Amino acid sequence: MFITFEGIEGCGKTTQAKLLYQWLIDRGKETILTREPGGTPSAEELREFILREREENFPPFSELCLYIAARGFHVENLIRPALKEGSFVICDRFSDSTLAYQGFGRGIDVDLIEKMNREATGGLKPNLTFLIDLPVEVAFERLKGKKKDRLEMESLEFHRKVREGFLKIAEKENDRVVVIDGRKSVDEIFNKVVKEVQRRLGAL
Amino acid sequence: MFITFEGIEGCGKTTQAKLLYQWLIDRGKETILTREPGGTPSAEELREFILREREENFPPFSELCLYIAARGFHVENLIRPALKEGSFVICDRFSDSTLAYQGFGRGIDVDLIEKMNREATGGLKPNLTFLIDLPVEVAFERLKGKKKDRLEMESLEFHRKVREGFLKIAEKENDRVVVIDGRKSVDEIFNKVVKEVQRRLGAL
Repeated sequence: MFITFEGIEGCGKTTQAKLLYQWLIDRGKETILTREPGGTPSAEELREFILREREENFPPFSELCLYIAARGFHVENLIRPALKEGSFVICDRFSDSTLAYQGFGRGIDVDLIEKMNREATGGLKPNLTFLIDLPVEVAFERLKGKKKDRLEMESLEFHRKVREGFLKIAEKENDRVVVIDGRKSVDEIFNKVVKEVQRRLGAL
Repeated sequence: MFITFEGIEGCGKTTQAKLLYQWLIDRGKETILTREPGGTPSAEELREFILREREENFPPFSELCLYIAARGFHVENLIRPALKEGSFVICDRFSDSTLAYQGFGRGIDVDLIEKMNREATGGLKPNLTFLIDLPVEVAFERLKGKKKDRLEMESLEFHRKVREGFLKIAEKENDRVVVIDGRKSVDEIFNKVVKEVQRRLGAL
């Protein structure tokens, strides 16, 4: 089973991904916790390339291509082999993030991104996605004082479009994507996560 | 004026690109000589990433995305600004190589590649392209003993498809692409290059 966590920076998805990973491990389940961009040596190298500030202009379409290239490495070398062996795979961000950030946020053609995602993943989609939804102002308040990377320094307006994009994806694929209110406490959110996993898989 | 040189490895295009660069410089023309993948610091970093051998599987679609990402940096930060200032730009490989190698060579959807090329270049096309055409066997003979990168180590069969791809592009865009027989001597080839440039631009 392939489970992804999505949402804007500061929404708390990384914490929830770690909690679910530990919860599955505690129940004796073979589980891999990974993230995007990244997850394999080549993809992590591309992550560092993408997030580093640089002197040159960084064209939005190049940024998109780099996320998709990293995803290709990740699916081919880590995610698909792990799923084949029957392992759980939990991923912090996946294709939905590219659609939300590069499509809805930067305005690149959403159909083209979906096509590129399909090519890079060989059609692989998560079985279950948690969207931890949070108003942008609350997320920004949480990130205050933290050293920010190139993407986290984008404007409030950009992150608003990204949040709306995530919500549109969730609406369109409401069977796969479960939206959870990120203003709730870590425990409350995690209870919902576990309930949803149990609802789909049985008691574990 | 934007002039590109294309062809399989070993065809002699790099030599010709350098000769034309010197020829234009000698005539007092502002000229930039550049190459793909590469041409700017970010794009050269991606070139190194693409050509390096690695432990992981390198998915063909990731390779495509990296070439396109590098092209985006190159066009945005070097080629377009230089053309705007009225400079000649000579480039060793460009969009046609991606179509030939990743499309015709690796079998990725040619329409999708063309769409990605358009997005990355903002529609920029060379005014004139020289395809130095050479039978694959002759090219391989020339490359013997040279330390080869990841792509040069591909099979004869792969490079045959690439050569055929280049010829198809030239046939389709016969006004832009001039095919020159790469078995001729360096001087003979360069005479044809100069004649074509003069035919299009006048005496210089």
